Amino acid sequence: MTYCLGIITRAGLVMAADSRTSAGADYVSSAQKLFDLSLPRERVLLICTAGNLSMTQTIMAKIRRDIKDQVPDNLNAMSTLHDISDYIGRQTREVLDQNRHWMNRDNIDYSCSFLVGGQVRGESPELYMIYSQGNFLRATKETPYLQIGEIKYGKPILDRTIEYEETQLDEAAKCALLSLDSTMKSNISVGPPINLALYEADTLKLTRRCQFKEGDSYLIRIRTSWEKSLRRAFQSLPEIDWIELAEDEDDLGNWLSPSNIYTA
Amino acid sequence: MTYCLGIITRAGLVMAADSRTSAGADYVSSAQKLFDLSLPRERVLLICTAGNLSMTQTIMAKIRRDIKDQVPDNLNAMSTLHDISDYIGRQTREVLDQNRHWMNRDNIDYSCSFLVGGQVRGESPELYMIYSQGNFLRATKETPYLQIGEIKYGKPILDRTIEYEETQLDEAAKCALLSLDSTMKSNISVGPPINLALYEADTLKLTRRCQFKEGDSYLIRIRTSWEKSLRRAFQSLPEIDWIELAEDEDDLGNWLSPSNIYTA
Repeated sequence: MTYCLGIITRAGLVMAADSRTSAGADYVSSAQKLFDLSLPRERVLLICTAGNLSMTQTIMAKIRRDIKDQVPDNLNAMSTLHDISDYIGRQTREVLDQNRHWMNRDNIDYSCSFLVGGQVRGESPELYMIYSQGNFLRATKETPYLQIGEIKYGKPILDRTIEYEETQLDEAAKCALLSLDSTMKSNISVGPPINLALYEADTLKLTRRCQFKEGDSYLIRIRTSWEKSLRRAFQSLPEIDWIELAEDEDDLGNWLSPSNIYTA
Repeated sequence: MTYCLGIITRAGLVMAADSRTSAGADYVSSAQKLFDLSLPRERVLLICTAGNLSMTQTIMAKIRRDIKDQVPDNLNAMSTLHDISDYIGRQTREVLDQNRHWMNRDNIDYSCSFLVGGQVRGESPELYMIYSQGNFLRATKETPYLQIGEIKYGKPILDRTIEYEETQLDEAAKCALLSLDSTMKSNISVGPPINLALYEADTLKLTRRCQFKEGDSYLIRIRTSWEKSLRRAFQSLPEIDWIELAEDEDDLGNWLSPSNIYTA
């Protein structure tokens, strides 16, 4: 499994990915899933990959070969992230079509997905997600993040904290790390190293990046600080307005009694 | 879908469930999923149900009929939660077997699951989960909670805050509500009313219960308070030790470059 996410705000873009790859619990290894294909001062372009590794590798290799061969339809020749996402979608369709017959025959899941984030000179920063079927969608101001892979564990913290207009980039980066940390804690098929990249809007050059390996002291510190804060947050939550149960309450007063529903 | 959870600590037990039921996005209604089958001063017994509603209703009705008919093998005649879980597992197997042929023929998901929590006089408080196949397991001190239904969104907050020895019951109840709230926010097939029950160990009588309907003012207050605390918590997180990118950095220094992996 994999977990990658991108967050877009007025201030810019954060993208993050784990590096664990597994073909069953008995074959676990590590593979890079966040790639920087920027052309400094011309465009920033970050791509995350999830799903069947042989498919995403083949697609990424095809993308690079098209650039090198300078075919008319290559990623660097495209002037919008929309066109770039459409191009990656088409590569995905082609590669999956070449493999479909053999994969289906042995019931192998060969689906894959991509996040594409960045900014092309003259355009606004954007963030896209490309599905296994080659169609794609764009992050909006209402939901300014996109996720691929094992997405559920890390979603609540994004829902509760990220706002397009207000969230600062360093906050978005910490939120991305906590979202990944929550996922790693719940699903062992998501794991370090974590790659993290931060892009300030309109600078047209990747601003910062970092990598957190297994047991990284910062990851431990951010987790400890977070859990301490959560416990403190509990103490400031309003008290629940409980119904105290009377000693002589009969079955009818108890709305949790199954007798309200199930005649015996 | 459904989301139910149980939390067991040294101090007692908290159980909570949503009430939404759906047969597709175009048929959404409400059904109780947390039931109190206690015999005050003899035993506390709470049951949560998830999965195919026609199956769980049939199983719950069978459980009540066996009690009413005082068959030898009825739930009130059992003296441990282990035996009760085994009995519910056997009822599940029987009811699913009666329906399997017709459900499979039309590819209908008829799986279901249960949480069973409480205390029988002379025993310790316990919490069990019963699978659709009738097998069951018990919550442990290491992972003192169990979930059924749409479990992923609400798991991180449990992982980060619940500890068997230390967590107070009112904290566990608030955590259960936040876990449900996170799930409702991400999956519209989980929804109010929320039923919540709290049991103090060794009292042999359900201590407190409450219900939160759509738009309940406490639910709104707890959500607002929580999100405010989370944002404050972000501000106290340690700063990330970024690698600032040099203006003239070449491709080799960039470990995010796909050229490290994909020869073109």
